[in-house]
Amino acid sequence: MSQIDTNTSVGLVSPETIVFNEPLLLACGRTLPSYQLIYETYGTLNANKSNAILICHALSGNQHAAGYHSSSDKKPGWWNEYIGPQKPIDTNHFFIVCVNNLGGCHGSTGPQTINPETNKPYGPDFPVVTVKDWVETQARLADKLHIESWAAVIGGSLGGMQAIQWAIDFPNRIQCAVVIAAAAKLTAQNIAFNEVARQAIMADENFHHGHYYEFNTSPKKGLMLARMVGHITYLSDQSMREKFGRDLREGKLNFGFDVEFQIESYLRHQGESFSEYFDANTYLLMTKALDYFDPALDYDHNLSLALKKANCQFLLISFDSDWRFSPERSREIVNALMKARKQVTYAEINAQHGHDAFLIPNQRYQNVLGGFLQKFYDDYCN
Amino acid sequence: MSQIDTNTSVGLVSPETIVFNEPLLLACGRTLPSYQLIYETYGTLNANKSNAILICHALSGNQHAAGYHSSSDKKPGWWNEYIGPQKPIDTNHFFIVCVNNLGGCHGSTGPQTINPETNKPYGPDFPVVTVKDWVETQARLADKLHIESWAAVIGGSLGGMQAIQWAIDFPNRIQCAVVIAAAAKLTAQNIAFNEVARQAIMADENFHHGHYYEFNTSPKKGLMLARMVGHITYLSDQSMREKFGRDLREGKLNFGFDVEFQIESYLRHQGESFSEYFDANTYLLMTKALDYFDPALDYDHNLSLALKKANCQFLLISFDSDWRFSPERSREIVNALMKARKQVTYAEINAQHGHDAFLIPNQRYQNVLGGFLQKFYDDYCN
Repeated sequence: MSQIDTNTSVGLVSPETIVFNEPLLLACGRTLPSYQLIYETYGTLNANKSNAILICHALSGNQHAAGYHSSSDKKPGWWNEYIGPQKPIDTNHFFIVCVNNLGGCHGSTGPQTINPETNKPYGPDFPVVTVKDWVETQARLADKLHIESWAAVIGGSLGGMQAIQWAIDFPNRIQCAVVIAAAAKLTAQNIAFNEVARQAIMADENFHHGHYYEFNTSPKKGLMLARMVGHITYLSDQSMREKFGRDLREGKLNFGFDVEFQIESYLRHQGESFSEYFDANTYLLMTKALDYFDPALDYDHNLSLALKKANCQFLLISFDSDWRFSPERSREIVNALMKARKQVTYAEINAQHGHDAFLIPNQRYQNVLGGFLQKFYDDYCN
Repeated sequence: MSQIDTNTSVGLVSPETIVFNEPLLLACGRTLPSYQLIYETYGTLNANKSNAILICHALSGNQHAAGYHSSSDKKPGWWNEYIGPQKPIDTNHFFIVCVNNLGGCHGSTGPQTINPETNKPYGPDFPVVTVKDWVETQARLADKLHIESWAAVIGGSLGGMQAIQWAIDFPNRIQCAVVIAAAAKLTAQNIAFNEVARQAIMADENFHHGHYYEFNTSPKKGLMLARMVGHITYLSDQSMREKFGRDLREGKLNFGFDVEFQIESYLRHQGESFSEYFDANTYLLMTKALDYFDPALDYDHNLSLALKKANCQFLLISFDSDWRFSPERSREIVNALMKARKQVTYAEINAQHGHDAFLIPNQRYQNVLGGFLQKFYDDYCN
């Protein structure tokens, strides 16, 4: 990128960091005495602070959702297609906050952080954090930013689970929950894929029981495998077929175990580059947060009862080719919300990209998300 | 098993081994000067040798398809539910042959075999073998057994691919091809799962570039991961849900990385026990044979043209919950056969077990397979 067009982009952005010295009691029973969160903001908070939106990231996401950190950046933030001036999450209207979740590896306190009790990185001793814990930390961040209530909490996949948890835990601090390509809980198959990813990381000779920082190494091969498995589940069979088919990289079979098919090349590349910048202990934590998410658990497995407390509008979006969190999983949430007499809008989007569709430009998806937020803005924020 | 009921089982069986000293030119261009195949037989070959059935095994199968090797065996052969007296593949009528494929690890020549040129195990130097190569070796085995033509060649999954190849390569030596839960070629997603399995094995510190025998070790962790990924694709989401749901092994969350959910326990157990008895180099070879299978490739990607040469009846069977080789993939073969004006019967079976359904008792499946073979027997073998 040689020049940033600020008509279509939030432009250059910088993350901010806040330290929290109030102890945080986690769902696992452990307490973090202090921690820090890194976050970015885009747009301007209005005078009555009614236009703030919280963006929650998914498994491998972070606080850098939109714009560029420097003019030499090759890529913008992970949701740049959807956040910016005149984009569905319109920074001309809204003040956007995106935070790297606790346990992350992009600047928030996590496994790479020095544990004050040992003066070594937490590593595997970092507590297992849950979606509920994240929502609590996000609420504390809102306090610091003097945001009493979010106009909307928005997220895709694991991010959508945070939006659901917000609606339940802080019914008076959220006006809209936008839950995209998510589920109210993982299936056995979802957990199984996460377990393969974890075993791949933990089986790596460089994992050292999670203490790899001290050995100046990291379980890159394991993390690469974990990411490869993940990628298969993010794409639809159809999109893989259209993108790669059975195309051979060199146009012929080599009768060996080097890369032959284009899909192999793609997966290895995705896995390798991910293993260069993401932390394996964080990956383990994120998969556990996914596995554990089950807000109905405390309500006798009755999701409708769990959502009864919610006080916000809901927008649910799913994608027909998504087999990781299929439309059926969104419909379960919609049904529970209807039963709980909540205000809910649901759109099932025709998209070929599988689970990844929530990140990819798609006219109907953009219209649904943008239209919903625009209406809310016109009715309540203006 | 304390006593074997020979009314329902083929009883005690022993494998046989044949050495082939005629050189075998493989699809990869290399030649094996000699090799051996291990096989089992059940039932009796009739006088005019018209009742012989070849069973082809899948990815992790072997020659032990039915019966018991000793009265202390806990488990019978892998397809014992379908092969035996009065079973769908009825040993009262047919003479059944099942061979461990070349490259296997159960007694046929493979990576564990001593390479006469080096006096060390072949290991990674064992040639990449294809479905076409296997069919050639099976034809040579038929020669040795004086079987001019098979009443049927039957297989599920990778085994079904061998049945297709038989129909194309030896149109006059096969009367019926029974192709169960198979596909005419892998999709990009199928290849992707195989690639993850291969990478898991090759990333294991004990793989030693495939020369692990010489280090007196084996890449068990990698093979375990490969099998875990495989297992996820063999089961349907629904069957996993019914079998495991989100059940916790200890009834509570432990906020750690040991086994928590039942599905994790199941997968780890399956992976670990597999890694104890299966050879990793063989697993690599088998996945490549799957990836490479594409009989239409030499016919301008026209499957119908490839099948034009076939001269046998076809029975195709698929299972509605199978997402590894879905019914759609069987229908592609059926359509190509219809277009080629071949005699084809197709049954789509309602079964909840996913790809694994081809191994599991199911009344309609048993009726279809048994009925088809019985009719053939009555018409041509009796």
